Amino acid sequence: MAATRTEAEALDATDPLRWLRDEFVIANDGLIYLDGNSLGRLPRRTERRLSSVVTEGWGSGLVSSWDSWVKDPTDVGDRLGAALLGVSGGQTVVGDSTTINLFKLAHAALDAARGQGVVTDRGNFPTDRYVLAAVARARGADLRVVDDPSIYEPRESDGLVSFSAVDYRTGALLDMNDITERAHRVGALALWDLSHAVGVVPLDLDALGVDMAVGCTYKYLNAGPGAPAFAYVRHDLQAAIDPVIPGWFGHADRFAMGPDYVPGPGVARLLTGTPDVLGLAAVDEGLRLLSEAGLGALRRKSLALTDLVMAMVDVIGPEFGLDVVTPRQPEHRGAHVSVRHPQAWEICQALRARNVVPDFREPDLLRMCPAPAYTRFVDAWDGVRVLGEVVSSGAHRSFPTDRRPVT
Amino acid sequence: MAATRTEAEALDATDPLRWLRDEFVIANDGLIYLDGNSLGRLPRRTERRLSSVVTEGWGSGLVSSWDSWVKDPTDVGDRLGAALLGVSGGQTVVGDSTTINLFKLAHAALDAARGQGVVTDRGNFPTDRYVLAAVARARGADLRVVDDPSIYEPRESDGLVSFSAVDYRTGALLDMNDITERAHRVGALALWDLSHAVGVVPLDLDALGVDMAVGCTYKYLNAGPGAPAFAYVRHDLQAAIDPVIPGWFGHADRFAMGPDYVPGPGVARLLTGTPDVLGLAAVDEGLRLLSEAGLGALRRKSLALTDLVMAMVDVIGPEFGLDVVTPRQPEHRGAHVSVRHPQAWEICQALRARNVVPDFREPDLLRMCPAPAYTRFVDAWDGVRVLGEVVSSGAHRSFPTDRRPVT
Repeated sequence: MAATRTEAEALDATDPLRWLRDEFVIANDGLIYLDGNSLGRLPRRTERRLSSVVTEGWGSGLVSSWDSWVKDPTDVGDRLGAALLGVSGGQTVVGDSTTINLFKLAHAALDAARGQGVVTDRGNFPTDRYVLAAVARARGADLRVVDDPSIYEPRESDGLVSFSAVDYRTGALLDMNDITERAHRVGALALWDLSHAVGVVPLDLDALGVDMAVGCTYKYLNAGPGAPAFAYVRHDLQAAIDPVIPGWFGHADRFAMGPDYVPGPGVARLLTGTPDVLGLAAVDEGLRLLSEAGLGALRRKSLALTDLVMAMVDVIGPEFGLDVVTPRQPEHRGAHVSVRHPQAWEICQALRARNVVPDFREPDLLRMCPAPAYTRFVDAWDGVRVLGEVVSSGAHRSFPTDRRPVT
Repeated sequence: MAATRTEAEALDATDPLRWLRDEFVIANDGLIYLDGNSLGRLPRRTERRLSSVVTEGWGSGLVSSWDSWVKDPTDVGDRLGAALLGVSGGQTVVGDSTTINLFKLAHAALDAARGQGVVTDRGNFPTDRYVLAAVARARGADLRVVDDPSIYEPRESDGLVSFSAVDYRTGALLDMNDITERAHRVGALALWDLSHAVGVVPLDLDALGVDMAVGCTYKYLNAGPGAPAFAYVRHDLQAAIDPVIPGWFGHADRFAMGPDYVPGPGVARLLTGTPDVLGLAAVDEGLRLLSEAGLGALRRKSLALTDLVMAMVDVIGPEFGLDVVTPRQPEHRGAHVSVRHPQAWEICQALRARNVVPDFREPDLLRMCPAPAYTRFVDAWDGVRVLGEVVSSGAHRSFPTDRRPVT
């Protein structure tokens, strides 16, 4: 932990991932960007790859480029699964959004599970709660919303248990192994939303026996605004899936255009419409970059960075009413630090006015994410220093209280 | 109609849309691209806009760019509706794929309609048939698959009638007004797939009283491979929609992140996950370009081009077994010409080997699309001339018979 800026500089000097920041576009070196948990930065290679896909792939190659593009959803899925999820091939696809994929897999899980009850938690990301409630309602299934997913108690009626691995507000990381095992005890299937975990927390879904997972790619995967999401389904569950949205790209022979839908082999049946080629290219570059860095190294740096942030906030916290709500134990936290303060929104605005970019979540959480791929220890140090200046001077009190938060 | 290449050159010389081809990237001027019905060409301005969205919007602006991006799905939707669908604001959104949007609107239509029967046609695009069949099955509704949508006979049990305005194989354009009126006679709702019509056939959904519509943007709208689709819902039907996929972007207050889903105002409730920002930018540029050209002028040129293609094929057709299946009357055809031949696939390959790019649809259709935005009369002329050379020389017989068609 760096008590002084010189110590933070020393941590940067010996950081084995120091090279990685140079792989990103840093348009304004004075900006302290602590919002990679909303939108990750642009990798330089992604900028080049997108330009190439647009100009050469689309502009010059035209329709002939589809000969290779058609394989992207499964190929990029396989690479993402291997690099970031710890799964073997044929279990991951990239396409649609996290919302859509959660909808597809929630239906698929209830097709496969014995029980029909749906379990989620009060603090889960809104779209997850909305989708799970809608799926339960559509199928006449019971929805059970628990307060604390970490103490989930299985019931015989449970069919689908769906939580987020990392809580989007608090940054708490659940014990996926433990919860998946508890779900399995009653024959329920575990469907994980990995949006705030993928690319920054090493995952090992095959070893954990996780049934299904979804997640987004625009946070730690740095694939850009609205890039397509991924969906993972364990091998032995795939054959039973009768897709709730049977699209032509999920068909066993999409160009036969036969009279009836015949699900494609394995996880490919989850594909729906024409794939987002640009988004897939960006996901591909993002996962390759993280893979080169290594998830172990990223995780070590992430923990060191969030340690630094939490320790510094702890120093000023008691005097200025800042309360770190993110769990302290490394095995129980993701990659962002959430700080509670009654004027969190005003503080967020004051920080942004000072070139420090955290974000805010209702009603009183300031989120600071020193994403390990491109955040230096001095950035984290400077960010919390500015936070200290704001709350000690009361500068935030001149900012409006009405809320206009960003994504 | 141009009987000689000189006459085709003369048509180009006086073409009021001659300037429009220069707005597109033409990487290989010798390539005769007749597959804009699969993947439209890259507009130069889209190339620039995408570069700007990536480098400035994402790379420099980072999360602050979401302040404007969040409005894209409805803003671009409104502009698309006004420019290409003939509808007033607040009825169109852009997002997800045609498959997903059809799924959402099929459920919405059955929520709103009195009858619960689902009607489509045998020749409809595969994903439409698969989705409509799945929705009918999920709701316990009857599915009626008619042979010829143009003579659709309404029944009291009909709730949702869904056809494609332009048949993807034959290029036949349906009388949307007539069919919509017949559906309304029994209280059914008409849901149109406009994928092969939007951007090349002037539409007037408000005047026709069309209930719902979806369509893709990567054909005549030139928004690129896998760009997001649009969804249109008539004003007075919107309030009753309880979205089958309730996503956070469709919530009335997406950043309140409240416990329950509350549908957003009007058509915005159809939004689901985080929007595809790059795709939306490309849709925006595509529709602006078509809007500057004017749909009337595009349609006039398109009809003249397809007239030329059909007339030339007619000359060689009888001798070489080529049969134009696209309707002759302008009011009954879209923008591509389909030619039947037992070796259509081999002919397709032979043409591609000669720098002419048509496409193929099972089992025996060669599709040639002289998209009016960038296809010259001499391109159409040369394309059919090469077709004549291929079939008269029998050059296609040396190409493999096994099928590997593209999208």
